[in-house]
Amino acid sequence: MELNMSEITKELLYTGKAKDVYKTENENEVIIKFRDDITALDGGRKDTLSKKGEYNALISAKLFQILEERGIKTQFIRLVEPNEMLTKSLDMIPLEVICRNIATGSLLRKYPFHRNQELNPPIIQFDYKNDVYHDPMLNDSIITALKIASQEQLDKIREITHVINKVLSKFLKEKGLILVDFKIEFGLDTEGNIVLGDEISPDTTRLWDSETLDNFDKDIFRKGEEGVVDAYHKVVDLVLTTEEKEKWNVEKFED
Amino acid sequence: MELNMSEITKELLYTGKAKDVYKTENENEVIIKFRDDITALDGGRKDTLSKKGEYNALISAKLFQILEERGIKTQFIRLVEPNEMLTKSLDMIPLEVICRNIATGSLLRKYPFHRNQELNPPIIQFDYKNDVYHDPMLNDSIITALKIASQEQLDKIREITHVINKVLSKFLKEKGLILVDFKIEFGLDTEGNIVLGDEISPDTTRLWDSETLDNFDKDIFRKGEEGVVDAYHKVVDLVLTTEEKEKWNVEKFED
Ligand SMILES: Nc1ncnc2c1ncn2[C@@H]1O[C@H](COP(=O)(O)OP(=O)(O)OP(=O)(O)O)[C@@H](O)[C@H]1O
Ligand SMILES: Nc1ncnc2c1ncn2[C@@H]1O[C@H](COP(=O)(O)OP(=O)(O)OP(=O)(O)O)[C@@H](O)[C@H]1O
Ligand SMILES: [Mg+2]
Ligand SMILES: [Mg+2]
Repeated sequence: MELNMSEITKELLYTGKAKDVYKTENENEVIIKFRDDITALDGGRKDTLSKKGEYNALISAKLFQILEERGIKTQFIRLVEPNEMLTKSLDMIPLEVICRNIATGSLLRKYPFHRNQELNPPIIQFDYKNDVYHDPMLNDSIITALKIASQEQLDKIREITHVINKVLSKFLKEKGLILVDFKIEFGLDTEGNIVLGDEISPDTTRLWDSETLDNFDKDIFRKGEEGVVDAYHKVVDLVLTTEEKEKWNVEKFED
Repeated sequence: MELNMSEITKELLYTGKAKDVYKTENENEVIIKFRDDITALDGGRKDTLSKKGEYNALISAKLFQILEERGIKTQFIRLVEPNEMLTKSLDMIPLEVICRNIATGSLLRKYPFHRNQELNPPIIQFDYKNDVYHDPMLNDSIITALKIASQEQLDKIREITHVINKVLSKFLKEKGLILVDFKIEFGLDTEGNIVLGDEISPDTTRLWDSETLDNFDKDIFRKGEEGVVDAYHKVVDLVLTTEEKEKWNVEKFED
């Protein structure tokens, strides 16, 4: 029997800015429901955009599968609905692990990098997921002092992040997209393994068209422009196979 | 012949917020003149306080000597005037290396540490000396991407900073002072060695009375209180020997 949200009593565990997390009958598994809410600028800009949750769930599921195939431990079990993902329940580490291949966004405001400067090796940065303190940047010394993670865990997270960056950059490049930067989150499973959780979607990555350098990500929304959901739809169209699009009833993408 | 500023034509190399750097006849040596200017709050509070430069030079000279005796490479050659230090000329690395033994100041505003929480191991943090960008915090990945220093240099700087912290904490504890935190700067000598430069003074450290936890440092000025120079005078009185105080004509300290 497929576990499906329509068949079970949903017990909400917690709710974030863009996703809800629900209990399942198995205490080691949760369902992550991707909502249509979108926020930016530390909560300063908000909207609800039909289909956004579905596109993010489909893209995340696809990228988690690609990573699993390359030996990266992820939360992903399976999609149960186009916007609902059955995942391992993780004890989340409150870090935003940011990896940058090209200098853009807040990096340019904070430091004297050249716009679109290539960063090779990529920059990896840890921000503290803490709304009260406005997600401040951390360093290893502060992370261990706050007991957010141990030095061994940080070294491992860095190592995994480099692999994720390589695997996804290559996959997306083949689809005509540049992986400019991304934010990921990790958690610990019941055995203490560091496992990739949360999502990898155009909400949490910067994806540029390889030719035009146009954004296919949340920057469209940050800039207050139209067409953010169309851009996410285009990413779904590029990364999913024809079979996957049929299975999840993804509407045909028209340019 | 002692090289003395009153005897030579001073050629100013550059001038900072609290010190001037002058050429000497030897291109590998400079004279650092400690001025009486004091600034805080990113330039938002300024003053000129008689004797401040002299006290900072005397304290810095003493602490550099203590460190040299323990095998730490410093810029220090000798004092030529109570407020003028002959030093090795260094190619300065634009990092503020901050080391914290107790949580206070900006750390409390940025992160959820408890006030006066002991930090053991100490927190080490690198801020970028860059007025245009308001001295942003860095991490190793950003430092190497900006080519400010190599990873090997950063590892070495961290190692030296831990030793400096241990040596100075012990020395100051014997004098009745707690070394709460400090900021140091390093430079490269002609052979590429990492050498401690700049100053170590109550302008750049937090020193608390071991008993009362009263400040003997620039926090008095930051808070807009009176008596900052008296406090620096007290530090001179505590750390210099009677002979040193006589040699440099330090006025008797009256409580
Ligand atoms: N496998 C998992 N197990 C348990 N919780 C998870 C898992 N994956 C993600 N989460 C958590 O689900 C929550 C909901 O995510 P969401 O992105 O909506 O919230 P948010 O983090 O508050 O918002 P923002 O991303 O804007 O900071 C987050 O706290 C996230 O860490
Ligand atoms: N041994 C040295 N050789 C060359 N320059 C040095 C040496 N030691 C220190 N300096 C530099 O001297 C300059 C003057 O110092 P000062 O503290 O007055 O200036 P500042 O750094 O502009 O101010 P702030 O400390 O408030 O940022 C600094 O740029 C410092 O890095
Ligand atoms: Mg999130
Ligand atoms: Mg200075």
